[in-house]
Amino acid sequence: MVRLALLGAGRIGNIHGRNVLLNPEAQLVALYDPYQPNADSLSEALGCQQMTAEQIFADPTIDGILVCSATDTHADLIEQAVATGKHVFCEKPIDLSLPRVQEVVAKVKASNIIAMLAFNRRFDPNFALLQQRIAAGEIGEVEMVSIISKDPAPPPVEYINVSGGLFRDMTIHDFDMARFLLGEEIVEVSAQASCLVDAAIGEAGDVDTALVMLRTKSGKLAQISNSRRASFGYDQRLEVHGSLGMLTATNVNEHTLTSYTQAGVTQAKPLHFFLERYEQAYKSELAGFISVLNGADAVLPSMDDGCQALLLAEAAILSVQQGRSVAVSEIG
Amino acid sequence: MVRLALLGAGRIGNIHGRNVLLNPEAQLVALYDPYQPNADSLSEALGCQQMTAEQIFADPTIDGILVCSATDTHADLIEQAVATGKHVFCEKPIDLSLPRVQEVVAKVKASNIIAMLAFNRRFDPNFALLQQRIAAGEIGEVEMVSIISKDPAPPPVEYINVSGGLFRDMTIHDFDMARFLLGEEIVEVSAQASCLVDAAIGEAGDVDTALVMLRTKSGKLAQISNSRRASFGYDQRLEVHGSLGMLTATNVNEHTLTSYTQAGVTQAKPLHFFLERYEQAYKSELAGFISVLNGADAVLPSMDDGCQALLLAEAAILSVQQGRSVAVSEIG
Amino acid sequence: MVRLALLGAGRIGNIHGRNVLLNPEAQLVALYDPYQPNADSLSEALGCQQMTAEQIFADPTIDGILVCSATDTHADLIEQAVATGKHVFCEKPIDLSLPRVQEVVAKVKASNIIAMLAFNRRFDPNFALLQQRIAAGEIGEVEMVSIISKDPAPPPVEYINVSGGLFRDMTIHDFDMARFLLGEEIVEVSAQASCLVDAAIGEAGDVDTALVMLRTKSGKLAQISNSRRASFGYDQRLEVHGSLGMLTATNVNEHTLTSYTQAGVTQAKPLHFFLERYEQAYKSELAGFISVLNGADAVLPSMDDGCQALLLAEAAILSVQQGRSVAVSEIG
Amino acid sequence: MVRLALLGAGRIGNIHGRNVLLNPEAQLVALYDPYQPNADSLSEALGCQQMTAEQIFADPTIDGILVCSATDTHADLIEQAVATGKHVFCEKPIDLSLPRVQEVVAKVKASNIIAMLAFNRRFDPNFALLQQRIAAGEIGEVEMVSIISKDPAPPPVEYINVSGGLFRDMTIHDFDMARFLLGEEIVEVSAQASCLVDAAIGEAGDVDTALVMLRTKSGKLAQISNSRRASFGYDQRLEVHGSLGMLTATNVNEHTLTSYTQAGVTQAKPLHFFLERYEQAYKSELAGFISVLNGADAVLPSMDDGCQALLLAEAAILSVQQGRSVAVSEIG
Repeated sequence: MVRLALLGAGRIGNIHGRNVLLNPEAQLVALYDPYQPNADSLSEALGCQQMTAEQIFADPTIDGILVCSATDTHADLIEQAVATGKHVFCEKPIDLSLPRVQEVVAKVKASNIIAMLAFNRRFDPNFALLQQRIAAGEIGEVEMVSIISKDPAPPPVEYINVSGGLFRDMTIHDFDMARFLLGEEIVEVSAQASCLVDAAIGEAGDVDTALVMLRTKSGKLAQISNSRRASFGYDQRLEVHGSLGMLTATNVNEHTLTSYTQAGVTQAKPLHFFLERYEQAYKSELAGFISVLNGADAVLPSMDDGCQALLLAEAAILSVQQGRSVAVSEIG
Repeated sequence: MVRLALLGAGRIGNIHGRNVLLNPEAQLVALYDPYQPNADSLSEALGCQQMTAEQIFADPTIDGILVCSATDTHADLIEQAVATGKHVFCEKPIDLSLPRVQEVVAKVKASNIIAMLAFNRRFDPNFALLQQRIAAGEIGEVEMVSIISKDPAPPPVEYINVSGGLFRDMTIHDFDMARFLLGEEIVEVSAQASCLVDAAIGEAGDVDTALVMLRTKSGKLAQISNSRRASFGYDQRLEVHGSLGMLTATNVNEHTLTSYTQAGVTQAKPLHFFLERYEQAYKSELAGFISVLNGADAVLPSMDDGCQALLLAEAAILSVQQGRSVAVSEIG
Repeated sequence: MVRLALLGAGRIGNIHGRNVLLNPEAQLVALYDPYQPNADSLSEALGCQQMTAEQIFADPTIDGILVCSATDTHADLIEQAVATGKHVFCEKPIDLSLPRVQEVVAKVKASNIIAMLAFNRRFDPNFALLQQRIAAGEIGEVEMVSIISKDPAPPPVEYINVSGGLFRDMTIHDFDMARFLLGEEIVEVSAQASCLVDAAIGEAGDVDTALVMLRTKSGKLAQISNSRRASFGYDQRLEVHGSLGMLTATNVNEHTLTSYTQAGVTQAKPLHFFLERYEQAYKSELAGFISVLNGADAVLPSMDDGCQALLLAEAAILSVQQGRSVAVSEIG
Repeated sequence: MVRLALLGAGRIGNIHGRNVLLNPEAQLVALYDPYQPNADSLSEALGCQQMTAEQIFADPTIDGILVCSATDTHADLIEQAVATGKHVFCEKPIDLSLPRVQEVVAKVKASNIIAMLAFNRRFDPNFALLQQRIAAGEIGEVEMVSIISKDPAPPPVEYINVSGGLFRDMTIHDFDMARFLLGEEIVEVSAQASCLVDAAIGEAGDVDTALVMLRTKSGKLAQISNSRRASFGYDQRLEVHGSLGMLTATNVNEHTLTSYTQAGVTQAKPLHFFLERYEQAYKSELAGFISVLNGADAVLPSMDDGCQALLLAEAAILSVQQGRSVAVSEIG
C-alpha cells in the first residue's frame, strides 16, 4: 500500500485526489493547498487530513507526492522531493524555463526517486492501444504521424499570459505524443502560426492556430495541427501511416445515437473537453505511477520526456520567429 | 443516507454491492448468501458484515434490500419485503410462473414499499437518451421499433434448463425495451423460433434463434431478433422509425481505432458481453433506486413492468407452439 | 450483337432504353408506346425507330424484348414472346393475379426463350457482393436475414389502387431478396401491418407499414420491415447473421462529407429514391440479360422467381387477414 | 454542339475521348497519336477519324482540342492552339519548367481562347461540394486546411525520372486543392521530405514521403501529407477547419458492406487509384469545359492556376533544399 500526499487542491488536484481513493493499492495521507477554501473542501470530501508542504516532506511514512499546485511551484517541489527522497507524480510542465527544467531533470536523474511527468494522453486507452499496436509492428515501419489537437474554446487572456504560449502550453502534449508514436528522437522542427481565433491572444503576444512539422534522423515525419477553438468540441485524433498500413484513433463521442431526418444524418459530438475525454487517462496514469511504486516494471513518462517536449516547443517558437526549419540540436 | 442490505453475493451481487460503495447516498449495511465462500469473500472485499435474511428483515435500521439471489427465491423475498416494509431492488425475473408473478405484483401494489425490477437496459446511457429523445418528439410518432439482441455465445445447457427458455430469460429484456420505446401497451404477439446454434439446446426443449413481431392497439409495430450466439460479440442495438425520422443506437465498441491495410479497413468489435456493455447501466439503475428512496421523483421499472414483459414472453411461446398471432389478452 | 426492342417508353422504359445504348453488346432496334408523346420523345432521344408491338413480334431480326409497359400488359406480352420466340426482359410484376402468373410461368417453362424478371436489387453492386460473400461461406450458415426497405414518401392513392397493395407491390422486392439471401425455400410466413402514414391509403384498403417474418424448412429466419415513408430518404439495408459472423450492407449516401458544428456531426442522407439508388443495378441487370443472350452462363431472376415472390405476398396478406402464420403450401 | 479533337490516345486520352462520346453537347471529330497502335485502337473504338496535329489545327470546323499527349508536348500544343484560335483542355502539367509555363500563360492571357488546365480533383463531386459549402459560409472563415494524398504504390523509376519529382508531379494537385479551398493566395511554403518507400526513388534524386505547410497573407494555414505508397489503396481526403466548424471529405470506398466476425469489424478499402476514384471527376471536368465553350458561365481551372501550383512546388523544393520557409514571392 503506497502512501501519498497531494500538493494542490484545485481542479486537477481534485481529480487525482479522488482517483487515489478509487485505487485499492494506494492511500491518500494528506493534502496541502495554500488557498484554504480549496484545502478545506477537498480534505473534507476525501476524508483526509491537511498538512503543510514542510510537514509532508518531513513525514517519513509518506512515499510519494502528487504535484498539482501552480506551475511556478513545480520545479521547487520536485527538488524538495529529491532532497527528501519522495517519489513524484507531477502535472506538466516542470517549468516554463528550459534551463530550470534541465537543472531539475539533472537532479532527478542523479537521485533514486521515481519521478513521473503526467502526460495524460499516453494513458488514454485508445491512444495507448494505438501505440502498442504500432510497436507490435501491425503497420510496419512508422513513416508519417498526424496529430490533430484542438480545444473547444480559447482560455481567457489571463491564462494565456502565464501559460508560456501555445507551443509550451498546448502543443507540448502533441510534441510528447509525436515522440511516443515515432519511437525515435526528433531532429528538426518547422512551425507556422497565426492568431485567427481571438485578437486578444495576439495582443498578448501569442498565437491560437498553428501547424508543426517534425522530422527524425531517419526521415520519419510528423505533423501537428492546433487550434484554441473547435466549435464542435475537443478534437483529439491520431493518424499513423506506416509501410504496411495506417492506424487511426478517432474522437470519443458523447453517445452512440444517430438521428436520420429530412435535415440529414446526425451523430454525437466529441466529448466536450479534457476532463471528460481523458477521465480514464487520469485514472490510468495515476494507477501506473502507483503500480511502479509498488514494484511493477512499467515505463512512465519521465521528467526527461518533459524536457524533450519543451525542447521541441522552443524549436517551434524559434522556427516561427525566424521563418526557418530549426535543428533541435540548436536548442539548449 | 439510505441503508441497504444485499441478498446474494454471486456475480451480480458483487456488481451491485460494489456499486453501493461508490454511491455517496447509500450505505451497504449487511449481506447474506447461503453459499458461505461467496458471502465471506464479498463481505471482506466490501468491508460489510454478514447477517441472515431473517436478521436483515428484522432490522429496523435497514431501509431496503437488493435481491441478487437465485431466481427461485425472488418471489418469496419480495413478499417478505412487503411484510416487513423494506423497499426492494430485485434482479429479473420475479418468477418464471406467471400466476406467482401476478400474486407478488398484487401484494406489492397493495403495499407502500418502493419496488423496482432491475431492467438494466433502460438505464444504459445511450438507450435512455434514445428513449428521452423519442419522448421529446424528435422523430414524431413512433411507428416501428427494431430491437437486435444477441449474446456472444450460448450458455451451458444446465443454465438453459432452469432459465425458463429463451423468451422468458433473454427476450424478456427486449419485451421490456419494446414497451419502454413504444410508449403504448402491446396487444398482439407473433413469434418464430429455431434451434440453429446448439443442438443440445433443442434437445433441452428450448430454441436459440428467434424473431418476434409486436403490435400495439393503435397499430405501432415492433420486431425483435435474438440469437444465443454472435461470433463477433454482444450485439445490442435499437432502431426506432417515426413519422419524422429514425433514431438508432449502435453497439458500444472496444476502442476507437481503425486499421487500414491491404486486408481491409478494420474496426473494434462490440464490448464482449453484458458485464462490459452495461457496466454504467448497473451503476445508474442502482443510483435511480437510491435516489427514489431518498425522495427523488423518478420513474423506475416496476414489478408490474416485469409482469407485463412476462405476459409477452408467454404470448410468444404460445405463438410459436400454435403457429398463430396471439392476443396478449388471451394470456393470464 | 443482340437486337432488342423496347415496349413502353415511360420512366422505366427511358432507363432501360438508354442503358441499351451504353451497352456495346446490344442494339436498340425499335420501341413502341401506345402513348404517342412518350414514344416520340424517346425514339428521338435514342435515335431509334418506332414500330407497333405486332411489327416487333413479327420481325425475325429482333432477338428480345424489354417489357416496360403498364403492369396489366405484362402477362400478354410475355405470352406473345413465347409464341414468337423472342427472349424477354420483363419489369416486375408479371401480373397481380397469382393464377395468371402461374399460367405464364408454365408457358415460359415449356418454351425455349430466355425470360428474366427484372428484380433490380439482386444487381445492386453491394447487395450482389453481399450475396456472393455469403455464398462463399464468409459467415458460415445463414441463420437470420433482416431486410429494411422503406420508401421516402407514399405514392398517390391512384397508384395504390392499381398496385395490388403493399405486399404485392413493394414487399415483393424484399420477398425476392429474402429468397436470394436465404438460399433455401421459405415455408412459412407471418405478417403484421398498419396504416400509420397516410389515412387515404387505409381508406383504399391498403396498409403502409408492415413487418414480415419468414421461415425456411431448416429453420432459417428472415424479417422484413417496410414503410411507405422515411422522411430522410430511401432506406434500403440488409443484415445477414450467420454462424460465423454478420454481413451488412448500409445505404448508399448522397456524398462523403461530414460537417462538425456546434449543432452536431452531420453526414449525408441516403440517395433519395430508386432511380438514384439503383442506377447501377439497372445497368447491371440489363447487362446480365444481354450477356446471357450472348451465350454467357449466368443466373438471372426467372419468371418463376417472380411467381415465388408473389406466393409469399399472398401468404403475407392471408396472415394479416387471419392473424396467423401461413404455410406457403396453403397458397396456390 | 462543340466539335473537339483529341491529341494523345494513351490511357488518359482514352478516358477523355470516351467521355466526349457520352456528352450530348460535344462531338469528337478526330484524334491524333504519334504511336500508331494507340491511334488505331482508339479511333476504331470511338468511331472517329484520325488526323495529324497539323490537320487538326488547320481545320476551321474544330472548336477545341484535348491535350492528352506526352508532357513535353503540352506547351507547344497550347501555343499552337493560341496561334490557331482553338480552345484548349490540357492535362497537367503545362510544362515542368517554370519560365516556359509563364511564357505559355502569358500567351494564353493575351489571346481570346478558352484554356483549361484539367485539375480533375476540383471536379470530384465530393470535393466540389465541400468547396461550395465552404464558400457558402457553412463553417465560417476557413482557418486550417488538411489535404491527405497518397498513392497506392510508387511508380517505376523510369516515370520518376521524367516526372519532375514528387512536388511538381504529385503534390501539384494538392497545391491546387489548397488554393481552391483557402480562397486566398498562399504567400509562404515550408516542406520536409524523405525517401522511405523505395530506395530507388532516392537514388533517382527524388523523395517519396513529404509534408508541406502553407500560409496565406491573412494567416490561414494549410498542410499536405503525401506518400507514394498506401498499402490500403488511394488515400484522398480533405479536412477544413473554420471558425464555425469543420468539413471533411472521406475516401470513396469499394462497397458499403461491413463484416462482423471474431476477427473484428471490417469495411471496404478506398477505391484503388485515380482511374476509379476520379471516374466521375473526369466526366465532370470535361463537361465543364464543353459547357463553357457552349456559353455557360462557369469558373474553370485556368492555365494560370497551373502556373500558381507550380510556383508552390518550386517553393517547396527550395524549402526542402535550404531547410527554411520560402516566400512564394521569391520564386519566379
